[in-house]
This record gives sequence, structure tokens and C-alpha cells, in this order.
Amino acid sequence: MEKAAIIKMIFTDACFGKNTPYTPVWMMRQAGRYLPEYMRVRQKAGNFLSLCQTPELAAEVTLQPVEILNADAAILFSDILVAPLEMGMELQFVKDEGPQFSKPLACEDDLSSLDINRAFDNLKYVYETIKITRSKLPHDKALIGFCGAPWTLATYMVEGKGTKTYSKVKKLLYANPRFLHALLSKVTEVLKLYMEEQIKSGANAVQIFDSWASAMEESAFFEFSWRYIKELCAYLKSRYPHVPIIVFPKGISGYLDKIDGDFDVFGVDWSTPIELAKEKLGSRYVLQGNMEPARLYDKKAIDAGVEHIINVMQNRRHIFNLGHGILPDISVENAKYFINLVHEKTKI
Amino acid sequence: MEKAAIIKMIFTDACFGKNTPYTPVWMMRQAGRYLPEYMRVRQKAGNFLSLCQTPELAAEVTLQPVEILNADAAILFSDILVAPLEMGMELQFVKDEGPQFSKPLACEDDLSSLDINRAFDNLKYVYETIKITRSKLPHDKALIGFCGAPWTLATYMVEGKGTKTYSKVKKLLYANPRFLHALLSKVTEVLKLYMEEQIKSGANAVQIFDSWASAMEESAFFEFSWRYIKELCAYLKSRYPHVPIIVFPKGISGYLDKIDGDFDVFGVDWSTPIELAKEKLGSRYVLQGNMEPARLYDKKAIDAGVEHIINVMQNRRHIFNLGHGILPDISVENAKYFINLVHEKTKI
Repeated sequence: MEKAAIIKMIFTDACFGKNTPYTPVWMMRQAGRYLPEYMRVRQKAGNFLSLCQTPELAAEVTLQPVEILNADAAILFSDILVAPLEMGMELQFVKDEGPQFSKPLACEDDLSSLDINRAFDNLKYVYETIKITRSKLPHDKALIGFCGAPWTLATYMVEGKGTKTYSKVKKLLYANPRFLHALLSKVTEVLKLYMEEQIKSGANAVQIFDSWASAMEESAFFEFSWRYIKELCAYLKSRYPHVPIIVFPKGISGYLDKIDGDFDVFGVDWSTPIELAKEKLGSRYVLQGNMEPARLYDKKAIDAGVEHIINVMQNRRHIFNLGHGILPDISVENAKYFINLVHEKTKI
Repeated sequence: MEKAAIIKMIFTDACFGKNTPYTPVWMMRQAGRYLPEYMRVRQKAGNFLSLCQTPELAAEVTLQPVEILNADAAILFSDILVAPLEMGMELQFVKDEGPQFSKPLACEDDLSSLDINRAFDNLKYVYETIKITRSKLPHDKALIGFCGAPWTLATYMVEGKGTKTYSKVKKLLYANPRFLHALLSKVTEVLKLYMEEQIKSGANAVQIFDSWASAMEESAFFEFSWRYIKELCAYLKSRYPHVPIIVFPKGISGYLDKIDGDFDVFGVDWSTPIELAKEKLGSRYVLQGNMEPARLYDKKAIDAGVEHIINVMQNRRHIFNLGHGILPDISVENAKYFINLVHEKTKI
């Protein structure tokens, strides 16, 4: 048994609902633009995609929030879109406009250009980033791997870019569900292999981000998103039961009653009241979240937000986090203040 | 008593929870780009803002969906941003980017440039549009006036344009709530006069659109949005009890437990399951909504969506609508099919 396995890892203990000496905390997008140290490495890499694809540099920014802020977990620095990119889709990060696929998918014939094995092989820079990060991360800190949920990835692949109306993918959903299911199945197959290899490379936990879960009405969410998340969770959990799985379907506070599946932690976004998540899911899953990221603009707002969540969760079956990614213009001082406050206020 | 008052108006009856011979139906954005007749008038007007500001033309497009689709109500053709525009803010509609205020508000000093009386006077093209429309609309069809909710308008006035993160207004919310409350109060004062005059001009019902209600966590929603909507509703209801008030705070399915106030109809967006809205609000308010607009891409999807909502609502205390605006690339044929199906399927 190697050394890492016998040292206590508070984060993974908390994921499994065990009592811990304090509530662990990390922040979505914690390796990001608000950190000057991140900006320096990103400049060295040239652009965002190069940073994702250069393991030494990606590992460096992955480690920063643990070193600088004392977060209890590092999350792999990468992007959810590297999976479709390496399946064979042309991806560009356009300044001020975000990521774009130059040839969005429109019909079943387009699926033949997507290659599952090629994606698995080409994503080795991710596996390498995980290996380097894990070798440098303190043994008591967790490394979280991640991927986008099949629905969110398929939406990008069909829309080509960010969208307010999701009209292309929703037109498919109602008028050509067969094609959409074929796409979702193919993406799910890639993600099974991809997440499995992230775990084999050293990820101590994995999170599935369904950023666009809220794009659909309830029945469509369960048919086109949740079903594939459950399939991915079942695949991983049956093979790696000791690796916690965190799901983060954003903005589905109306659908919590029907949530089930083989995962350990439910990520609560800021728009879902933590009381509601506790009522609907708290006995079955550990909850992660959910402080409103904009509270980090102001220390008094941080105090009130942290206090409210602690009052509801009572330091039990809970991992602290923001309810969405940290905003790029938050001060490092306030980010540190948040992390430290959680540690102080939840200490037994 | 004039003729309009003695003719039965199914829409307003339904707003007050009375039984009607069928469930009335209209669509948000029903006067819009999917209609060739609308596009012709818009071209004549030159641009979107001119169309809003030319009563004869605005009335023409307001009437079209009643004539073409047989909707049970017309909704004033206008834009929520004419209120801040006429308070003194420079507004531009930038092609492909949407509306933008060139000088967003940043501090309390900026409030002095906003003029309540000027806004009230300058908005006379809206009152005129309502008068013309009401004079041409069949007596049994309702005319709905509307405004944006104070929060949604204030957000535009601070952000300057559409936003994904709402970071400017949310920074204010947590770091300078005094300024934000001052702005919200001023906007609410304008809206009281504006909506009152819409009613005096002939609006048979009014709807308050809080399109960005979902931008905030629960506590902030009730402090910065709902409080001002309630204030506006109380003002109007105490003066015009016979005019139904419809509220549409979009995407707050997690907060329904705490909704109350002096209004008649709660507009349910597509992301809130209609079952959930019925459970939480159905005994206290008539519900309006909430078919997923993307279902209009496909007739079978329309059939299933209409059937589901009818099964839940059982033709009682319900007004049919989409759960958000009709999409611009929906066929007129499918829009007609939807309206007709609702009439057929809900007939007693």
C-alpha cells in the first residue's frame, strides 16, 4: 500500500459522508483568472487550449489554489470541450466569445466523424496532467478529475457555441430525438473511458458538470441528460467504488424529487436553496455547495453566506463550495478569506 | 356602460378563476419575428424602437396574433426598456447584440439624471398604442399591458446590456445595496404611474415580466425583486381591483413556497414543472403557462405538451401559454396548430 492511501484525506471522507475534523472546501474554477499566478502561467502557455494541452503547465495551475488558498482539493485544470475536440471536432477559443466548434453536428451522418478510440488516445495530456499533479500534491489533499455531462457536451457539439435559446439542440430533441440519443450515447462511451483513465492516472474523486442541465423541461432533462449521467456513474461506480462521484446538474431545483443514481455527492448550485436540497436529497447524498459566487465581492456578504449554509448543514454530510465558478474579478484576498472562514467556523 | 363592458371576456374571467367555456390561450412574444405580417410592418417602421414608438404600427402588430392565430388576448407590442429609455437613459438596439444602454448607472449620483415625470409623459406613444389597439380589438378579446419588473429593469440599467454573470448588479447587491434599493425604488415609482396609465388607456389586464428573476439566490430575490413587484401589485390592485395582474418571475422554481402578494395570475415558465406550481400556488393563484416553446417545432411534441398540461390542470384556474417567448423560427402553421389544439381540447 503506497503512502497516499494511508494518509487521511478529509475531502474523500466527506464525500462518503464520514465525519471530518472540519468541512472541506474548494471552489469551482478555483484555478482561474482571478489569480495572478494563473495569469502568468497562462501567458507562458500562449492560449487557453495550449495550457490545457501542456501537462507541466496545467499541473502547475491545478496546484496553485491548494498552495495559495489552502483549498482541500485540487481540481484538474482542463476544459469540458477537450473531449469533443479529441473526438474529431474543430475547436476554437474566440476572444470575448468563448469556445466555438467550426462545424457543428447536424445529422446522423456527422456522427461517423467522431472517433471514440482516437479521443481516448489523444486525451493523454489530461492523464499526464493528473499524474504530475498527483505526484506534487500533498498526500492529504484530494485531486478531482472531471468531465462535462453528455447533454452539455452534445449541446455544444450541435449548437457550435454558447447559446441563450438552445434552439438547435431543442429542435432536435423534439423533432429528431433518435439522432440526439445516438450522439449522447457516443459521447457517453467516450466519457466512460476518459473518466476511467483519469481515475487510473490518480484522480481521487470525479465531478460531472452538467452546466446546461437547466436548458430543458423536466421530462426532457430525465430523458436526455440524467439518463446518461446515471449510465456514466453506474459504469464508474461498479469499477471504482472507492472513488467518490460528484454530480453537478446546474439549475434544476424544480426536479430534485426524481433525482437518483449511483453517485456520492450532489453539487448544489446557488439558485437551489440549500434547505431545499437538504430536504430532497440530504439523506441520500452528501451535498456540495452552494454559496452565491457574487458574495465573494464583499466580506460581510461572505460572513452571512457561510453562516447561513453552516446553520442549515450543521457541518454534516456537506462539502463547502461556491454554487458556481468563482468570478474572474474577485480579489484573491476575499477568496482566501472565504476558504479560511469555512475552516475556522466548521472546526470541531 | 359601454359595449365592451357587457360582452363576456373569457380571458379576464379566467384570470379571476371563473369557469370559462374553454381555456384561453395566448403566447408570449406572439407579435414577433416568426410572423411574416409582423416583419412587413417592422420593415415599414425602420427599426424595432421606431416600431414601439409609432402607435399606429405598434397597434397593427399587437392585433395580428389575434387576427391570424385566434389568440384570446393581444399583448401590447412594446419593449420593457422603453421605461428606462424615457427616464433619460440612452438606448440602442445593436444588431445581433440586443439592446444596450450606452451609459450604464454606476453610483447614486447617476440617479439624479433619471426623471419620473419625464418618463410618464414621454411614454405617451404606449398609451396611444393601447387606445388604438383597444378600439380595433374585438370586444371579447382582452388587451394585456405590461412592464418589466423593477429588478429586471435595474439590472439592464446597471449592466448596460444582456449579461451571463450579472456581475455588476450583483456586486452592487452585496457591496452597495443602498444604491440598488434607491434605483429599484425610483424605477418602481415610474412603473406605478406607467401601468396605471396603461390601464386608464384601455388595458384589460397587465403582466409584470421579471425575466431575470432567476439571477439571484433566494434571499436576494425576495429583497431586491419580489418586494418591489409586490409594491407595484399592491398599488395597482388597490386602485384597479377589476384589472387582473399577472406576474412572471422566470426560473424561480426553488422559491415558490414563499411567493405571495396582491396579484391574480402566476406565470409559470417552462423550467418550473406545472405540477409543482399547482401544488405550491394553484389554490391561491390562477396559473398561466407553461409549454416549452421548443415543442412548437414539432406537432407531435405540441400534442404531448398540451395533453400533459391539460392532464395536470384539468381546465381549471388555468390560462394556456408558452413557458417563455415563442422562438423566431417557429412556423406560423405550428403556432396556429397549438392555439387551435388548446381550444379544441379544453372545450366543455
